[in-house]
Amino acid sequence: MAVKYAKRMQGLQGSEIRELLKLTQQPQIISFAGGMPAPELFPVEEMKKVSVAVLEENGRSAMQYTTTEGYEPLREKIAARMNDKNKTNVNKDDILVTSGSQQGLDFAGKVFIDEGDVILCESPSYIGAINAFKSYQPKFIDVPTDSDGMIMEELEKILETTDRIKMIYVIPDFQNPTGRTWPLERRKKFMEIVNKFEIPVIEDNPYGDLRFEGETLPSLKSMDTKGLVIFLGTFSKIFCPGYRLGWTCASPEILSKFNFAKQGADLQASTISQMEVSKFMDMYDLDAHVDKIKAVYVKRRDVMLKTMEEEFPEGLVFTHPEGGLFTWVELPSNLNAKELMPKCLDKNVAYVAGGGFFPNGGRENTFRLNYSNMPEEKIIEGIKNIAAVLKEAMGVEA
Amino acid sequence: MAVKYAKRMQGLQGSEIRELLKLTQQPQIISFAGGMPAPELFPVEEMKKVSVAVLEENGRSAMQYTTTEGYEPLREKIAARMNDKNKTNVNKDDILVTSGSQQGLDFAGKVFIDEGDVILCESPSYIGAINAFKSYQPKFIDVPTDSDGMIMEELEKILETTDRIKMIYVIPDFQNPTGRTWPLERRKKFMEIVNKFEIPVIEDNPYGDLRFEGETLPSLKSMDTKGLVIFLGTFSKIFCPGYRLGWTCASPEILSKFNFAKQGADLQASTISQMEVSKFMDMYDLDAHVDKIKAVYVKRRDVMLKTMEEEFPEGLVFTHPEGGLFTWVELPSNLNAKELMPKCLDKNVAYVAGGGFFPNGGRENTFRLNYSNMPEEKIIEGIKNIAAVLKEAMGVEA
Repeated sequence: MAVKYAKRMQGLQGSEIRELLKLTQQPQIISFAGGMPAPELFPVEEMKKVSVAVLEENGRSAMQYTTTEGYEPLREKIAARMNDKNKTNVNKDDILVTSGSQQGLDFAGKVFIDEGDVILCESPSYIGAINAFKSYQPKFIDVPTDSDGMIMEELEKILETTDRIKMIYVIPDFQNPTGRTWPLERRKKFMEIVNKFEIPVIEDNPYGDLRFEGETLPSLKSMDTKGLVIFLGTFSKIFCPGYRLGWTCASPEILSKFNFAKQGADLQASTISQMEVSKFMDMYDLDAHVDKIKAVYVKRRDVMLKTMEEEFPEGLVFTHPEGGLFTWVELPSNLNAKELMPKCLDKNVAYVAGGGFFPNGGRENTFRLNYSNMPEEKIIEGIKNIAAVLKEAMGVEA
Repeated sequence: MAVKYAKRMQGLQGSEIRELLKLTQQPQIISFAGGMPAPELFPVEEMKKVSVAVLEENGRSAMQYTTTEGYEPLREKIAARMNDKNKTNVNKDDILVTSGSQQGLDFAGKVFIDEGDVILCESPSYIGAINAFKSYQPKFIDVPTDSDGMIMEELEKILETTDRIKMIYVIPDFQNPTGRTWPLERRKKFMEIVNKFEIPVIEDNPYGDLRFEGETLPSLKSMDTKGLVIFLGTFSKIFCPGYRLGWTCASPEILSKFNFAKQGADLQASTISQMEVSKFMDMYDLDAHVDKIKAVYVKRRDVMLKTMEEEFPEGLVFTHPEGGLFTWVELPSNLNAKELMPKCLDKNVAYVAGGGFFPNGGRENTFRLNYSNMPEEKIIEGIKNIAAVLKEAMGVEA
C-alpha cells in the first residue's frame, strides 16, 4: 500500500503518558504516572440523582444537538466561577465549551500556527500540549525557568531576538510537570512584556483551584488589558475527567476562531454532559466538593514529600508544590529516568520520565510524580520502591 | 491588537447549518435545515435506567479517564454491528471511538492533507466535511454525479490526470445532501479504481442503517482488500447525537495515525458516554429502536415528497431517497436559494441553501430539505410555505 500521510504525521508519536495509562491499568501497579484524580472522591451518588433529574426535566434536549458555543446555563456558571476564582471580568459570551481543556490546546495550534512558526513555553512544559501543538509543525523555544516559573529576563531576550513567535504557552499555577507557581510580581512582569510585544498567551489552568496553602493569585487573564490571553479551564480535576468537559475563555475575535475550529473538529461538546455538570452545580456545592478533594490531596502530597525526604538518596532535588497534582524530581545528570523505568515497573511502580516534557529533548535525568491518584499507604510503598531503584543506580547502599 | 492567525483561518467561516441552528431553535420555526433526529424518539426513559446502572456498577471508572482507543466493550459491539450491518470483517482493535463521526473527518484532514493536496468528493458533498477539511488547506475537486452517485468514468479521468490526490471522500448511502445511494455495481467499480490508484477513501456512513425500503448494500469497507477504506460511523442518527459518539474503522497503520490525532485533539471520547451507550445496547435492543425510528421517518419522507409533488411549481427537480434524512431540490438555474431564504424565514420555514455543499462554489439554485425532525402536519405546512415562495419567485400563480 502506497498511502501518503501529511508531513505533520512524521515523527508524531503517541504520548508516553497515554501509552503508560494502558500499562498502569493493571491493578498491581502503583502509578504515579498519569494526572488522574482520585476516583474514590468522584460524586457518583450525586451524579445518579443528577442524571435522572436532567433526563426527567429535559431529556429530549439533553440527547439532541445543541449550539457549538455550548449549553448556556453551563457557560454562565463557568464565567461566574472564573470571576470568583480567577478574578476575571467575563461573561457567558466569552466562553466556548470544549472536550476537556486538551481540545483548547489543539485549537490554539490550529488557530495560530503555520509550519515553522515559533511557540514559547516553559522549560519543561506539559507533554500533552507539546504533542497537540506538534501537529501544526511549529518550532518550540522553551524559556528557562527557576523555582518561581518562567524567567522574565530570558523571555524578553527571546522575544526581542526571535522572528515568527505566534504564541506563548504557560501554566502559571501548579505547573505540569513541575508543580511550580508563578508569584504575583512575575505575573505582572509577564503581562507587561506580553502587552509590549502583543503576542497571544495560552494560560492553561487545570489545577489553579487545587491550592492547599498560601494565597490565591490572580490569573493572567484577570490582568489582560489587550485581549491577548486565552484562558483554558477544565472540570477534569475539580469534578471528574470522564465527562470530557473544559472551556476556552478569550476575547470575541479570538473566540470566534476557536468556535470555527470547534465546528470542524466535532460540532459541539456533549449536550447531556454539559447539562449534567451544570445540574450538579445547581443541586450541589462544587466548592465544597473541591474542598473535599483538596483535603485528601494535601495529605497525599505530604506523605509523598515526607517519604521522598526520608528515602531518596542525597544528590537529587524535587519540588514542594503548594497545590495541584505533581512533584518533579531531578536526578544527578548522569542518570536517565527513562532507563530506570523498567526497573521501577519490575517493582510495580510507575512515573513519567521527564525528557518528553522538554519540546527539544534533553534533561533525561528528570521525572514527574503524581500524588493525587494513590492512597497514602501505596504512596509510601511506591516511593520506597523508587528510592530502592535510585539508590542502586547511584551506588548508594540501601 | 496585532494578533496574527494561521493562514488556514483565512476564509474559514462558520457552517451555515450551525448558524441556522441558532435561528431555528425558535419554537415557531418549521426547520428543514439541520440534520437533526426526531427528539420524541430518543429513549429517554431507557437512558434514565441505563445511567443509574452504569453509575451503580462502575461509577468510578465511568467518571475517570480511559484509554484513547475507547471503552473496549463498546468497541466490541461496534465491530460486531458493522460486521452485521455493513458486511465487514473487523474486530475491536480496528475501531477508534471519536466525538461523533465529525471528528473522524477532522482527523482525516489532519492525517492525510498538506497544504495544496487534492481531495476528491461527490458534487455536491457534506458541508461539514468540506469545512473540516478546509482547515488543512486542500484543493477540492468535486466529481460529477448522477442519480446513482459519483460517476466512475469521471472519477477515473480525474485520477489519471491530477497530481497530489491524497484522499477521496464519499457518502455512498443516502448521501448528505442529496439522499442518493450508490448501486452495487458502482461500488464494485469504485473499489476497482481505488485499488488501482491506491488512494485512501473516507467512507462516511451516518445514515446507512436508516433504509426504509429496497435492498441493503454492502459498504465499501466490506470490499476493501488493500486497507484503503476508512469507515466513519456514528450513534447520532440511530441513537442520539447528544452523547457525541462516533467511530473510525480503519486498517492498523492508518488507525494508529488517527489514534495520535485523537490523543492530541482531546485525549479520548467521554468515558461515561461510552459506557452508557454500551450499556444501552446490553439492556435494550438497538435494532428495535432503529426500526422505530425508520417507521416514523419513512412516513415523514412520504408526506414531504407527496406535498412537494402537489405544491411545488413545475420546472424543479428533487430526489426520492430510499432512506436517510434528506431530499435535495434543484430550482431553475435563474433562481438563488440563498436569496429566497429570508422570504421563507418570514413564513417561519427554513432549509439549507445548496451552494455551500459545492466546495468550489456555484449551483446556488439548489437547497437541502430534512424530513426527520418535524412532525407530519408541520412538514405539510412548511412545504406549502416554501412552495408559495417558489411560486412567487417563478411567477407562477399561487
